[in-house]
Amino acid sequence: MQPVCLVIGAGAGIGSNVASRFAREGYHAVLCRRSDEEGLSRSVARIAEDGGAASGFLLNAVAPDAIEERIAAVEADIGPVEVAVYNLGAQIGDRSLAETSHKVFELGWRLGTFGLFRMASAVCPLMEQRGRGTLLVTSSTAAMRGNQGQHSHAAAMGGRRMLCQSLNAEFGPKGIHVAHIVIDGMVDAPDTLGRMLGDEAFQRLREERGLEHDGLLLPAEIADTYFQLARQHRSAWTHEIDLRAFSDTPWWNR
Amino acid sequence: MQPVCLVIGAGAGIGSNVASRFAREGYHAVLCRRSDEEGLSRSVARIAEDGGAASGFLLNAVAPDAIEERIAAVEADIGPVEVAVYNLGAQIGDRSLAETSHKVFELGWRLGTFGLFRMASAVCPLMEQRGRGTLLVTSSTAAMRGNQGQHSHAAAMGGRRMLCQSLNAEFGPKGIHVAHIVIDGMVDAPDTLGRMLGDEAFQRLREERGLEHDGLLLPAEIADTYFQLARQHRSAWTHEIDLRAFSDTPWWNR
Amino acid sequence: MQPVCLVIGAGAGIGSNVASRFAREGYHAVLCRRSDEEGLSRSVARIAEDGGAASGFLLNAVAPDAIEERIAAVEADIGPVEVAVYNLGAQIGDRSLAETSHKVFELGWRLGTFGLFRMASAVCPLMEQRGRGTLLVTSSTAAMRGNQGQHSHAAAMGGRRMLCQSLNAEFGPKGIHVAHIVIDGMVDAPDTLGRMLGDEAFQRLREERGLEHDGLLLPAEIADTYFQLARQHRSAWTHEIDLRAFSDTPWWNR
Amino acid sequence: MQPVCLVIGAGAGIGSNVASRFAREGYHAVLCRRSDEEGLSRSVARIAEDGGAASGFLLNAVAPDAIEERIAAVEADIGPVEVAVYNLGAQIGDRSLAETSHKVFELGWRLGTFGLFRMASAVCPLMEQRGRGTLLVTSSTAAMRGNQGQHSHAAAMGGRRMLCQSLNAEFGPKGIHVAHIVIDGMVDAPDTLGRMLGDEAFQRLREERGLEHDGLLLPAEIADTYFQLARQHRSAWTHEIDLRAFSDTPWWNR
Repeated sequence: MQPVCLVIGAGAGIGSNVASRFAREGYHAVLCRRSDEEGLSRSVARIAEDGGAASGFLLNAVAPDAIEERIAAVEADIGPVEVAVYNLGAQIGDRSLAETSHKVFELGWRLGTFGLFRMASAVCPLMEQRGRGTLLVTSSTAAMRGNQGQHSHAAAMGGRRMLCQSLNAEFGPKGIHVAHIVIDGMVDAPDTLGRMLGDEAFQRLREERGLEHDGLLLPAEIADTYFQLARQHRSAWTHEIDLRAFSDTPWWNR
Repeated sequence: MQPVCLVIGAGAGIGSNVASRFAREGYHAVLCRRSDEEGLSRSVARIAEDGGAASGFLLNAVAPDAIEERIAAVEADIGPVEVAVYNLGAQIGDRSLAETSHKVFELGWRLGTFGLFRMASAVCPLMEQRGRGTLLVTSSTAAMRGNQGQHSHAAAMGGRRMLCQSLNAEFGPKGIHVAHIVIDGMVDAPDTLGRMLGDEAFQRLREERGLEHDGLLLPAEIADTYFQLARQHRSAWTHEIDLRAFSDTPWWNR
Repeated sequence: MQPVCLVIGAGAGIGSNVASRFAREGYHAVLCRRSDEEGLSRSVARIAEDGGAASGFLLNAVAPDAIEERIAAVEADIGPVEVAVYNLGAQIGDRSLAETSHKVFELGWRLGTFGLFRMASAVCPLMEQRGRGTLLVTSSTAAMRGNQGQHSHAAAMGGRRMLCQSLNAEFGPKGIHVAHIVIDGMVDAPDTLGRMLGDEAFQRLREERGLEHDGLLLPAEIADTYFQLARQHRSAWTHEIDLRAFSDTPWWNR
Repeated sequence: MQPVCLVIGAGAGIGSNVASRFAREGYHAVLCRRSDEEGLSRSVARIAEDGGAASGFLLNAVAPDAIEERIAAVEADIGPVEVAVYNLGAQIGDRSLAETSHKVFELGWRLGTFGLFRMASAVCPLMEQRGRGTLLVTSSTAAMRGNQGQHSHAAAMGGRRMLCQSLNAEFGPKGIHVAHIVIDGMVDAPDTLGRMLGDEAFQRLREERGLEHDGLLLPAEIADTYFQLARQHRSAWTHEIDLRAFSDTPWWNR
């Protein structure tokens, strides 16, 4: 049975690129995303065209049992989840406190923190039995510091970071590699940045900063670092790493 | 009308000591705690005996509208909440991932992160109208780093810390002082440490490390720092501060 | 014999204000600064007018034995140094790498890191014998993160911060309180900010942001926090604290 | 002309392994170490045997002009330094403040902070002209937090970390990749850990924790991550990364 790389949050940016990268290295990539069945099929097809193995599933990470059942089905039907990638953002955007309803704040947590907890709760016992496994957690600037308009997002991501450290403390010595990956900048991704800015502004930004200027994080390049993390030898594992475009300003500078 | 110092989480440790300290300085102290009506009455009575003004309310911070309605009632009936203290722990204790149910993880967040968000959402608009106010947030080691058995607790506290930084970014410039206070050690408090350890072990620890050895954090001394933070001039505000016993090891050392 | 509060770096800003504050509380303030004998005399005279005890000395902190001999003389002639304040900046300013000579980089370290090490080496053994003492270390944004033009300054301040944590680990349990105080913003001080900007720009800035707007850190208010730190009970000591004007942006935001 | 990977601090652990790794990928490896000419020759010979290009030089990094002249000679005689690795420890060991002489404290800084500054001052202008280059800086736990007995070491490493952030702020946008690599654990290296512990204790530790247990950081595996950092695409660069053995405890836990 092929080892599986499971990606929760497999949009057209980091998620599907990570899936492709692992598929190219012999993993069966399992892509899960909430909506856009067409986009999902396209990602799966592209991997197959490149000679890789992939499956795609729509998955609402907030729905009860959805994550748990998907993992159980993948393990039963496809293969052991050797690498689990949690790539869901908190997707709340920039809002003042007054504009952040209780519901929105809770949704941020459900996507940003609780979903990762659920994925880990489902997959870590299986990995522990096998004595190995990798959890790659996409994270963001907001995991490192709160900021204006980030009440929900930063609280969710701060929780995510501390959860990763707690998972690492329990499961590292059991052979499970937990990595918290701080994406500290804008990613050249139509599904997230593109949707946030709108088509026109997104294209303008790509021309000004991205494309040949390399001022936006390229998802394929991010994916390469994800893969390198997964193949680190257990005598020299990384728990936390940051990534940003060379011309960009790190979160601690202005 | 007297200015109010509202304490959510007014157990016999930090909470009631902070209430007393502010009462001594002329605030009307409003103590809220989930249970132990007798303990609550004792705390209120002790403040009154010392010549201070105090009121006590049972408050289940997890119940819908409980925080919001309490704040509205205090503002209507007692006075403006000039100082709001969020002193609820995530109260989950040391548990492996397998022992941390979805429900427990969520409860940690409700107490640790969401309750603070709700308090801030209710009280910040009032403070903003008045052009001033203070939010004192008790926090813990787990806000700074995750650890074994802390999946729920650290995720909740990490969220709390990032939320405090987000609140500070929006409300600092509006004259609202937000302080994130890292209590990095064991507090000599019967309601929390005492209940966690059991009576006998608690007394043994007090004799070995606490009492005249000052190896446990004394809540009255902690309360003094809370008060000093609240009276800082707005030209020189503290956002983050740590506190521990002199003989204790900081979280970053071993 | 009166307890002494020794201030190394007693310019017209934080240093002399801290000296005044402690003098007001019954300490003999000993002010040391490198130059401007007239300014030093004025600071000493002002404390005396307010009914406090103070002495002033010119001290070149970079000269061999200068710090060590001053501390020995103060202990012999004036009284025990109960509180030692290290308030020297690295005073290098904003320079590209090409503009930072070896000499300048080394000077930054001599003022920023080595001077504190020398002060601690001279004063900690005396405090250890007495079983108590306080080291208050003024620090800055550059201790928390490097930035453009800060090669010398940030390296010196980063060293200062780690040295404070090392001193704390060794001497905290011996009753010596070490506090690292992050001044995260511009201080309304003629000797440092004033000299840096020039008179005219300094006055303009004071009118725009400082004075009644409280957008600059007021040294007298900073000094108040220094004093509160020194009087913290040893069961609840602070090691690290930040300070900034309410309207200012913390180093981790932009 | 072959691109050069210059390693300052090329002992038998991380340094020579990084050199080998880059040699295997087509770089001319230039190994510099202070002493043990025989060990140096062995490292160079081993690279040659594997079909790589390498040169070795004795270099006292503390001597005036030594780093600067070596870099100039390498650029003139061998090729452009595309990758510069600073791998000198502060080599001071565990000492109380009383045991840390002024001279020892200064030596820690010369090796830990100043040497990196000198290397950067010599090599960054050349890299800037070429519009590209990589600075890989080995760092340690002590860059993240001070501890007992680490007065010199932590001050030096804290300075190193802030210097890396300052270099990154100036040179990142100019196409120079600066990476601060936190080696958070004991490395299976005879020249450093071996010398520190003595032969017998080192072998015992290797048997108990290292070798097949992977409880010590293996230098060849560390070197692999160094190489992956150097080949990251500039749209997704890492500035800070940590590394430790899977079974080890991160610095923030105990």
